[in-house]
Amino acid sequence: MNAISTLELMNTLGAQARAASAQMAKAGAAAKARALRSLAERLRASVGPLAEHNARDLERARAAGLAEPMVDRLKLTPKVIATCAEGCEQLAAMPDAIGEIIGMKQQPSGIRVGQMRVPIGVFGMIYESRPNVTIEAASLAIKSGNAAILRGGSEAIDSNKALAALVRAALLDAGLPEDAVQLVPTTDRDAVGRLVAMPEYVDVIIPRGGKGLIERISREAKVPVIKHLDGNCHTFVDASADLDMAVTLVDNAKTQKYSPCNATEGLLVARAIAPAFLPRIGAVFAAKGVEMRCDAEAAALLAGQPRVVAATEQDWSEEYLAPIISIKLVDGVDEAIDHINRYSSHHTDAIVTNDHSHAQRFLREVDSASVMVNASTRFADGFEYGLGAEIGISTDKFHARGPVGIEGLTSLKYIVLGQGEIRQ
Amino acid sequence: MNAISTLELMNTLGAQARAASAQMAKAGAAAKARALRSLAERLRASVGPLAEHNARDLERARAAGLAEPMVDRLKLTPKVIATCAEGCEQLAAMPDAIGEIIGMKQQPSGIRVGQMRVPIGVFGMIYESRPNVTIEAASLAIKSGNAAILRGGSEAIDSNKALAALVRAALLDAGLPEDAVQLVPTTDRDAVGRLVAMPEYVDVIIPRGGKGLIERISREAKVPVIKHLDGNCHTFVDASADLDMAVTLVDNAKTQKYSPCNATEGLLVARAIAPAFLPRIGAVFAAKGVEMRCDAEAAALLAGQPRVVAATEQDWSEEYLAPIISIKLVDGVDEAIDHINRYSSHHTDAIVTNDHSHAQRFLREVDSASVMVNASTRFADGFEYGLGAEIGISTDKFHARGPVGIEGLTSLKYIVLGQGEIRQ
Repeated sequence: MNAISTLELMNTLGAQARAASAQMAKAGAAAKARALRSLAERLRASVGPLAEHNARDLERARAAGLAEPMVDRLKLTPKVIATCAEGCEQLAAMPDAIGEIIGMKQQPSGIRVGQMRVPIGVFGMIYESRPNVTIEAASLAIKSGNAAILRGGSEAIDSNKALAALVRAALLDAGLPEDAVQLVPTTDRDAVGRLVAMPEYVDVIIPRGGKGLIERISREAKVPVIKHLDGNCHTFVDASADLDMAVTLVDNAKTQKYSPCNATEGLLVARAIAPAFLPRIGAVFAAKGVEMRCDAEAAALLAGQPRVVAATEQDWSEEYLAPIISIKLVDGVDEAIDHINRYSSHHTDAIVTNDHSHAQRFLREVDSASVMVNASTRFADGFEYGLGAEIGISTDKFHARGPVGIEGLTSLKYIVLGQGEIRQ
Repeated sequence: MNAISTLELMNTLGAQARAASAQMAKAGAAAKARALRSLAERLRASVGPLAEHNARDLERARAAGLAEPMVDRLKLTPKVIATCAEGCEQLAAMPDAIGEIIGMKQQPSGIRVGQMRVPIGVFGMIYESRPNVTIEAASLAIKSGNAAILRGGSEAIDSNKALAALVRAALLDAGLPEDAVQLVPTTDRDAVGRLVAMPEYVDVIIPRGGKGLIERISREAKVPVIKHLDGNCHTFVDASADLDMAVTLVDNAKTQKYSPCNATEGLLVARAIAPAFLPRIGAVFAAKGVEMRCDAEAAALLAGQPRVVAATEQDWSEEYLAPIISIKLVDGVDEAIDHINRYSSHHTDAIVTNDHSHAQRFLREVDSASVMVNASTRFADGFEYGLGAEIGISTDKFHARGPVGIEGLTSLKYIVLGQGEIRQ
């Protein structure tokens, strides 16, 4: 590369994305599906070459002393590539949301008014480590008719460049502008600062990564950000819960995987059911090596179990992402809702109950992006919700809330059909 | 008032709003309707006292040398009050949107997933001069189950205080928390700076006022802002347009009122129809004293009309809000769409045409909040769109686009109903 400045580089990418977005917005459903199927084919045909590019990233990571679990996340194995290809084909097969018209109604003046779903325009995606996010973001951009500027982690730069080249070739295969998906080719950190601050070229930023990254982006962004900071999720076991179901759900919500943001971090138990329930779930947690940070009452009921420690005020707000859970007794659904609305990160919270009115109140009053009855919090996910794919999860209340799929990357504009009506 | 600081004052209002918003979110439809009907009654019964409070604002405004049209905007006449009261009754009669559940579908895992409409929480409204906005904002807050902090213009402070007292009494009549609607009681400008920067208490800011105010707020805000900056709206007369309809629509779109943001500021005319159309609309404009800022071709076709002047590049971007219109000839729908997407403020743009494919392309490709076929741009308005009321118009693509009514003040959260399903 010549001595072009990062600022010039980002301006060029921005202008190219803006131009491509106009073409993508009017692209037909067939062309977008063709690009996605072509991308799937190109991915499957490139397992070998991708492995070579990926090897350079892995070598650099190991040389830099990255821990092996972090190195694992960088790997573009044949299985990861196959999953990416399947995702593209699934998106290709989904109905095209763009151009959908909803709510068309005639008004007293005679005009008919409705809303048309259109792409947002250009989104900037900033992410860390896993290179398959490059394909997820690119395929969602294509399906939703947006242009995207992708900024992956520096540790995956070689893999990302190779993947982005496949995406651009697939766009050309379908007669679409290759600049609809552009990867920032430099690992210069200033590129991020510029990407989030050019509203003339970028309509929204979607960060995926650690809290530090997301806080930095929120602070510097001059455009809207679809973000989630924390996943401090709760499961509340109501007095009327089915005990077996409660044990199964809480176990799954905590231990099926420890690292996802939708894992339960806080367990609330109605006082009336606690003596029957807590020893059972305590035995499950003890067997799996889960540390239980308990209030005094819960600790008393769990006496004798290993790994029971006293909770501090800080524990109620904590996102552990680890084999640790906070446990607290509450009077009932009122106290549970109050606790959750105070301490939850408003990501996902669940009630286990057989009481219809408690279920209804919990659904209505818990102020979180996903609220569940008798289901594991681990279901809070774009694929499990039937969105087809997920670009991220939003804990904001604005625009998109919860798992964000194609619709979150679109906007509704008003359309008006008249026969010459004028305003009186 | 004692010597409480503006910061303390705003924090108190914020904490009170946040507490009230939880009550409002679970308030029943009947209670909200009762509060709105009670507010209507109280307004009608208070014409006399309101006039006295209003007189103090008017006196101050005249003493400060405010121009009479500006003084007019401050007036709380019996007619203005009656319109406010009717607005409250109309909102009371509308269906309650809160708690609506949409898109409930079963997923392969067995869970059922849908979305529930819930209030955003707390909105801050910042507006200038017209005191009736206090009632519009308060009534929309009540209906949508939000809490609101209102910051009106200092010139209307006495009227606003009297109106806010009626709102709070009406809330209490219905058993709702009076802090659901709070007026900032000071005219200290620091209050605005604090209001837009307390995300712990305020979820969204809605500014209504001049471009300077909105730019300041966008710059300082630490929470999302629903805003519109400019209304540079266009009407494009296609070659296939019905000539009579085109004259009627363009006349109405420009001259029915000059000051609204949805008035047409730019006229584009297909070259093929220009010789037939331009002299006719030119005569209408000339008779009404509208200045025509024309490109060379349009000027030639309007030769002989008074008030025809040469347009500069600047004219294509201008929001005149005055008896001035820019006029430019274009080849056809492609050039019209390009011009609009380049120069429009993305508020409202219309095509006059009898060509079906041109109409469809214009609807789909023009990237504005409202896109119209054969209707006056003056229709871009919450009442005309059947929203019942309007808190503002958004030219952003995010969350709410175009006229913002009750739905724009709500958010959709995911709800999941299971029977003990766990993630595999």
